[in-house]
Amino acid sequence: MKRKLRYGMVGGGPGAFIGAVHRMAAALDGEMDLVAGVFSSNPDKSRGQGETLFLNPDRVYDSYQEMAERESALPEGDRIDFVSVVTPNHLHFEVARCFIEAGFHVICDKPLTNTLDEAESLCRLVDEHNVIFVLTHNYTGYPMVKHAREMVRAGELGTIRKIVVEYPQGWLATMQEVEGNKQAEWRTDPRRAGLSSALADIGTHAENLAGYITGLRMQELLADLAIMVEGRQLDDDGAVLIHYEGGARGILYASQISVGEENNLRIRIYGTEASLDWSQEHPNWLYHRFHERPTKILKRGNPYLHPIAGHSTRFPWGHPEAFLEAFANIYRNAGRTISARISGSDPHPYDLDFPTVQDGTRGVHFVESVVESSMRREWLDVRYQPPGE
Amino acid sequence: MKRKLRYGMVGGGPGAFIGAVHRMAAALDGEMDLVAGVFSSNPDKSRGQGETLFLNPDRVYDSYQEMAERESALPEGDRIDFVSVVTPNHLHFEVARCFIEAGFHVICDKPLTNTLDEAESLCRLVDEHNVIFVLTHNYTGYPMVKHAREMVRAGELGTIRKIVVEYPQGWLATMQEVEGNKQAEWRTDPRRAGLSSALADIGTHAENLAGYITGLRMQELLADLAIMVEGRQLDDDGAVLIHYEGGARGILYASQISVGEENNLRIRIYGTEASLDWSQEHPNWLYHRFHERPTKILKRGNPYLHPIAGHSTRFPWGHPEAFLEAFANIYRNAGRTISARISGSDPHPYDLDFPTVQDGTRGVHFVESVVESSMRREWLDVRYQPPGE
Amino acid sequence: MKRKLRYGMVGGGPGAFIGAVHRMAAALDGEMDLVAGVFSSNPDKSRGQGETLFLNPDRVYDSYQEMAERESALPEGDRIDFVSVVTPNHLHFEVARCFIEAGFHVICDKPLTNTLDEAESLCRLVDEHNVIFVLTHNYTGYPMVKHAREMVRAGELGTIRKIVVEYPQGWLATMQEVEGNKQAEWRTDPRRAGLSSALADIGTHAENLAGYITGLRMQELLADLAIMVEGRQLDDDGAVLIHYEGGARGILYASQISVGEENNLRIRIYGTEASLDWSQEHPNWLYHRFHERPTKILKRGNPYLHPIAGHSTRFPWGHPEAFLEAFANIYRNAGRTISARISGSDPHPYDLDFPTVQDGTRGVHFVESVVESSMRREWLDVRYQPPGE
Amino acid sequence: MKRKLRYGMVGGGPGAFIGAVHRMAAALDGEMDLVAGVFSSNPDKSRGQGETLFLNPDRVYDSYQEMAERESALPEGDRIDFVSVVTPNHLHFEVARCFIEAGFHVICDKPLTNTLDEAESLCRLVDEHNVIFVLTHNYTGYPMVKHAREMVRAGELGTIRKIVVEYPQGWLATMQEVEGNKQAEWRTDPRRAGLSSALADIGTHAENLAGYITGLRMQELLADLAIMVEGRQLDDDGAVLIHYEGGARGILYASQISVGEENNLRIRIYGTEASLDWSQEHPNWLYHRFHERPTKILKRGNPYLHPIAGHSTRFPWGHPEAFLEAFANIYRNAGRTISARISGSDPHPYDLDFPTVQDGTRGVHFVESVVESSMRREWLDVRYQPPGE
Repeated sequence: MKRKLRYGMVGGGPGAFIGAVHRMAAALDGEMDLVAGVFSSNPDKSRGQGETLFLNPDRVYDSYQEMAERESALPEGDRIDFVSVVTPNHLHFEVARCFIEAGFHVICDKPLTNTLDEAESLCRLVDEHNVIFVLTHNYTGYPMVKHAREMVRAGELGTIRKIVVEYPQGWLATMQEVEGNKQAEWRTDPRRAGLSSALADIGTHAENLAGYITGLRMQELLADLAIMVEGRQLDDDGAVLIHYEGGARGILYASQISVGEENNLRIRIYGTEASLDWSQEHPNWLYHRFHERPTKILKRGNPYLHPIAGHSTRFPWGHPEAFLEAFANIYRNAGRTISARISGSDPHPYDLDFPTVQDGTRGVHFVESVVESSMRREWLDVRYQPPGE
Repeated sequence: MKRKLRYGMVGGGPGAFIGAVHRMAAALDGEMDLVAGVFSSNPDKSRGQGETLFLNPDRVYDSYQEMAERESALPEGDRIDFVSVVTPNHLHFEVARCFIEAGFHVICDKPLTNTLDEAESLCRLVDEHNVIFVLTHNYTGYPMVKHAREMVRAGELGTIRKIVVEYPQGWLATMQEVEGNKQAEWRTDPRRAGLSSALADIGTHAENLAGYITGLRMQELLADLAIMVEGRQLDDDGAVLIHYEGGARGILYASQISVGEENNLRIRIYGTEASLDWSQEHPNWLYHRFHERPTKILKRGNPYLHPIAGHSTRFPWGHPEAFLEAFANIYRNAGRTISARISGSDPHPYDLDFPTVQDGTRGVHFVESVVESSMRREWLDVRYQPPGE
Repeated sequence: MKRKLRYGMVGGGPGAFIGAVHRMAAALDGEMDLVAGVFSSNPDKSRGQGETLFLNPDRVYDSYQEMAERESALPEGDRIDFVSVVTPNHLHFEVARCFIEAGFHVICDKPLTNTLDEAESLCRLVDEHNVIFVLTHNYTGYPMVKHAREMVRAGELGTIRKIVVEYPQGWLATMQEVEGNKQAEWRTDPRRAGLSSALADIGTHAENLAGYITGLRMQELLADLAIMVEGRQLDDDGAVLIHYEGGARGILYASQISVGEENNLRIRIYGTEASLDWSQEHPNWLYHRFHERPTKILKRGNPYLHPIAGHSTRFPWGHPEAFLEAFANIYRNAGRTISARISGSDPHPYDLDFPTVQDGTRGVHFVESVVESSMRREWLDVRYQPPGE
Repeated sequence: MKRKLRYGMVGGGPGAFIGAVHRMAAALDGEMDLVAGVFSSNPDKSRGQGETLFLNPDRVYDSYQEMAERESALPEGDRIDFVSVVTPNHLHFEVARCFIEAGFHVICDKPLTNTLDEAESLCRLVDEHNVIFVLTHNYTGYPMVKHAREMVRAGELGTIRKIVVEYPQGWLATMQEVEGNKQAEWRTDPRRAGLSSALADIGTHAENLAGYITGLRMQELLADLAIMVEGRQLDDDGAVLIHYEGGARGILYASQISVGEENNLRIRIYGTEASLDWSQEHPNWLYHRFHERPTKILKRGNPYLHPIAGHSTRFPWGHPEAFLEAFANIYRNAGRTISARISGSDPHPYDLDFPTVQDGTRGVHFVESVVESSMRREWLDVRYQPPGE
């Protein structure tokens, strides 16, 4: 018999933005309960957060190692089915490895890891331990993004010639990291954020989104990263020119110093027959453009969309959905795939639509390539296949 | 000690749109659990839905009367704290009365009732039994709507001169009610929908929204209802000219035959100093316009908004929120107010911001007035004060 | 052999807004020259303006009577072919009559006259003297408006059910007429503006636009005019509910106290099959909406538009046209029709597409009806046919 | 005494797009008359066009050389004051040289020439013959573009950090040049278009616009040009990464294969304090954005704009202006500057705001640099100063 899933969380203490997002995304459909967690490296904070979340204090732990160990020891009917990893980037690897090795399925925030070595290790561990691993590149959870992918697959754009994907934000236009902004602190700190800030944090979303919709793989790229705010140690702005396999051209840029931009991820895809235009800040609409034919606006919730868009939609047209529902689609798909695994059944094919450890590894490879190309001021061959793909 | 609330639901069986909305809205913040329900007048369907929702079968009932009785008999630590009423309109009154008389708090879908007598009875019952009664005029849950109200209150628009509020939809442009569309069936059936279809179903949202933001009360109105689709029994389109107390003029219209419109509730408010413009389909933005000064776009999630907007927001700027979060704001406010009542504490003042039984009664009075004015083709004095206000 | 037309102007002195518009509209296509005029009731101002416009001083006159007389006396190869009347409203009648009686064709600004008697007289005079009379309801000159009309005619919307046409401005939200604003002075002065200000000045544009696109005639209406600014003598805001012949419903409103609005004429037309949405401030686009089919944006300059749209377009797609070109379309059509008359040939059928003296008379009838309905607070039968139609 | 200017035209025969634009732009303000021309290399076509334009047949010439010679021979009160050169690119140099040497002022379409040598020669000739030379980079004629420049100059954006300027079109997504599209034929023909198609034709507009508004000069760039349509000989798409002097970064792209785009020139400029966003297809609005402060929309025709915007505006707010008026601003400024030269007076400082031969030369240098960088796949130092600057 079908039952609700149980999950634990690592990270997501008081004040953390993304942990709360994961919890709401998980709660939305009533198919899973948060039952355990270690929410902070500070045990008091962790326990306080557990209480706020109405958790059983026995299952609020002091460390992720303790959590993995003690949850493993619980009877099958009690222990968590999966763990959500929502720590800063540099901890993803160790935490994920620990739970994978204990046999738990994992939902992990992006970027996957700070180094390609770590990422590739995770690919192999996932394979070895046969767990389900889901990366929350949440922007692929939007129904109109899924419909865009299906349009490309069905050839509605013809052959793709050009991709313009941009992700400008403005919040790091000043030295937020020395003004007590915790989100800024770790994202701009090389020890925690790795080689890159803007390109790793949001550039990977752009890279993932373009790859998700078009299915195109990069062949070579030239990047130009910048540190625009004096005193900062990592890139806060960067542009990448891309040659895709098959000949399409791409422009990808990410910026955190674009004053006045909030979270303006946008992608335009031009084919020989038509083009698409989608913006995250107005996610219910997808523009479909043609040469000398009327522009079409496709709107979420309509029957003319591909069924996977309907599968990923909760409300009728005109009742706008947004960021949360897209995030929840990653969770729901992940949860239903995990449930199917548990019950030995086959998940619905649409439920398998979530970003994988290989997608994350490709993102880490992208970040390393971009940093190298920018330093060398040269085009770089970036063909790559992650382990297990 | 703070605890999660428990609630039951009446209505919201398989295929019902609004019941699922209520459940997601309730689930979002992890502050309340659905534990009981009667989801259909068909006991089998009700039980099936209970199972789908992972409910304890003992608490899935055959009738709302049984539910009220048996939940009342449960120990205080187990029984529901409130009930959500999400049936078709004509049942709101009986169901709500039953639970109020049993001492339960109530969250009820709109419109409140089908007759003013029923609505006024509910006002008196709520008062008599001292329960909390919340009506889900969900569009007032949007943070930018709350900010708009605060701008009006603070005088940022000067004296209000004109309100244009419109709510066009297109889904009833054909005889959906004879083509198996259940949403259409009861909404266009005088026995279940009451005196009016379009004006009751969505016109009341427009009326409530305008009243919420401006605080203005109507003095007289002239309505012009229409049945545009042959064979239909209730209005599917209507326009209302309004004179507000104090001299402002209003145009309100609601339509379900406006082909191509989805759920396009929009309000424009013009004062002596500035004007506002907000659309439900793009709810994160609020336009603030002036004479010969730059137009401003106010965006959800920003620190320049009134604190009540921040209080009603879950994600930062640029991470769009939408219909669900607005609905959840009604639930969260209602839940926290109920929790405060239970624990004998004072709710946060912002949590008291939800539509009341009096707001609902005013809406029913509006519907009756509109129908009468339209039939008489005359201006009507519509000054009114509901019981208990 | 084809030649350039010659025209004279009455009104349009220094500082007058609309006179300059007429001159630019006339100049644009190089098919007509301004050669004579009386630009002000003050002869010095008139002569100064003539000099600024590089006119022959002999043809700058002191009064319109003098101009009509002396131009008539010139040889056929010299004298003006038509006159443009761009005075304040109350002078349209006398000036137009004078030139019609002298046998000149007339292009006249709107509204036609201040009384229905005058308007009907002009209808008869035009007929009697067999001149071409063109009223500059310039908004019908937009190519996308013409395309909209052709869509309605071709049945692409099905049967029209609803028209919402609105024309909000904000510039008269304060007593501009006592602060030296000449545009405001005469428009709000009953002696010069007639019975109505807002409804006559801009409401007639809305009325004309709706009639132009849909071809529907009004059967009855109920109006609610207001004077929102204390001390003003004429309406500065008004709403009109309309029943069209055949059953369509309409909402028309015009306002000059809608702070923050500039010149926001917009029309939405809903049929049984589809709807249209056009805004004057973004005139190159026309939205075409459907039930559960993608919205289309039709864009000026494209080959998929009706040929009359192409006929009325000067630049390719993407090179936006605007107010001036629409105005110039009235002039070009008028000019070519006049040229054809002169040369005894048939004008191109598309060139005959301009507002006539009957359209203007219908507008004056509309203004009188609106004023009467508002005063009586009653629905009014407004079926009407102007002389000569 | 002030008089109307007289001008001649070279190019602009029947079917030519840009010649008609120049003529309308020149006609709009009634300050200059077209009196001479050679409209085609085919004398019959030229004469036919002259007739259509109501020109004196004596002044419709068979060659530009003949025109320069015979106009020079006319008395001062008759001969043209300046010539408009609207031929395909490869003829600009010879035609312009011919008229400059004959002492005529020149208005020339862009790009200036096909080689840097030619461009630099023109710089020297203009200086030597002391004529006024105006290049029609018409997009700088928009009032909101002028206001943007003034905002940058006044420091309202702080220090510029980033420029994103894009110019996508879609009309060359197929081999138009072999399907009888004359506009496509010469633009994609290396003998007539020079080294580049897309970057020369529209990329230079983007380059000029960014330079105009920000005043920043390029230090180095990396370009990636593409031929996306098989069989074509010149670039139809290209992206350029730019390092400006002083440290700002830029992304510039131009494309003619972006299916569904019409003429979508757009520029975003990010400074330390604020950013700007302007689109040619919606030219009356300028977005002004800030970090955590409301976005502002600045609208053409308002008194809050810099006086040079008002100087460049013909209609009040809400009466949209567009492409033509911007083009006419170049003509009006050029004409008034020429008039001032003729009369020995000083032009109004705002009238001096037009693109010069040096601006054009910088554009040609940009094109050559882009082509070279793309071929070498390397960053290129592009610091440059045209002769006479």
